[in-house]
Amino acid sequence: MTASIANPSPTKRGRPGYDQESVLSIAVEVFNMHGYDATSMGKLAEHLGISKSAIYHHVPSKGDLLRLALDEALVPLEAIARDERASKGTAEERLKFFLRSTIRVLVKRQQYVTLLLRLRGNTEIERDALQRRRAVDRKVSDLVVEAQQEGSLRSDIDPRTATRLLFGTINSLVEWFRDDGDVTSQQVEDHAITMMFDGLHKRAQ
Amino acid sequence: MTASIANPSPTKRGRPGYDQESVLSIAVEVFNMHGYDATSMGKLAEHLGISKSAIYHHVPSKGDLLRLALDEALVPLEAIARDERASKGTAEERLKFFLRSTIRVLVKRQQYVTLLLRLRGNTEIERDALQRRRAVDRKVSDLVVEAQQEGSLRSDIDPRTATRLLFGTINSLVEWFRDDGDVTSQQVEDHAITMMFDGLHKRAQ
Repeated sequence: MTASIANPSPTKRGRPGYDQESVLSIAVEVFNMHGYDATSMGKLAEHLGISKSAIYHHVPSKGDLLRLALDEALVPLEAIARDERASKGTAEERLKFFLRSTIRVLVKRQQYVTLLLRLRGNTEIERDALQRRRAVDRKVSDLVVEAQQEGSLRSDIDPRTATRLLFGTINSLVEWFRDDGDVTSQQVEDHAITMMFDGLHKRAQ
Repeated sequence: MTASIANPSPTKRGRPGYDQESVLSIAVEVFNMHGYDATSMGKLAEHLGISKSAIYHHVPSKGDLLRLALDEALVPLEAIARDERASKGTAEERLKFFLRSTIRVLVKRQQYVTLLLRLRGNTEIERDALQRRRAVDRKVSDLVVEAQQEGSLRSDIDPRTATRLLFGTINSLVEWFRDDGDVTSQQVEDHAITMMFDGLHKRAQ
């Protein structure tokens, strides 16, 4: 009620009400809604309710917005490999750690990962991001091969096909998971891991 | 070599070299590449190397092209439920039949299913197609519930989450499966079914 009289929390930089983070979070939604290519800075300004020049106060260009948004997905995905649990234990344990951690990033950074997954590679920034994504994917693919070799995973499934199907299962989450739904993110994580490793069949007791 | 002198196979209708089917097949590629909304009839004509009026010879509007293209995916998906194997045997057997048949449609109609999966529901035609897709999805979801009740599928996974993950696994195929790759469509079908039902874990002998 008093907010219009005195602003109790003035922002430190940029236009009142927006900092770079919130510009980014709205930009990524607009990119996902209309597609990156089809989103002009003018359209973005409209969605933000500010002028184009006010956006340029936060970021130099649309490409920079894209790069920053993709980093929101890629940086935590790349961090998984640097966690000590990514290099401890059997290949199966490490693979599970990778997949669980990936699911967590997907759920926490849903909009940013959606943007990453829909990239078409039309620009240098997009191609660079796709290359970083492929490097992350390759780590999972290597772990599938290693887990087959150690004998914990079945070897009658082609490892590249298995990796593609694992990512298919996991990546679909960004399309349908809702934080306010009936199923918590912890349950979805557990269900997905169970299904991928043990399958839907009821096992003999 | 002689094709430029005498055309040995004149098309029965439309412009030489194109019938409705080939216009459709190129249109769906262009829609998938640039997005349906961003594809004008002018851009389409450019890709086809014919005039706009030549396209109108085949279809009355861009919306009709979309509707016809979506039918190429939806009609065979809807036909699965009418196959007699869809109503014979245990719920688990029927579910497997549904999923195997869905994979076959995805592989055979890859471009058309891609278009269907990327729909945003901006127009009446898109919303109608999404509704038909949801009706197909619901049949799978019902079978998961039934298979859990008959005791063939584990009941510790929420059936809606399981259905979403099954479609995630299967639908990803349209993004990566290549007919000329190392793995045949039959192998991909078998690997996907094995993974979804039995999981990647090596089972005790």
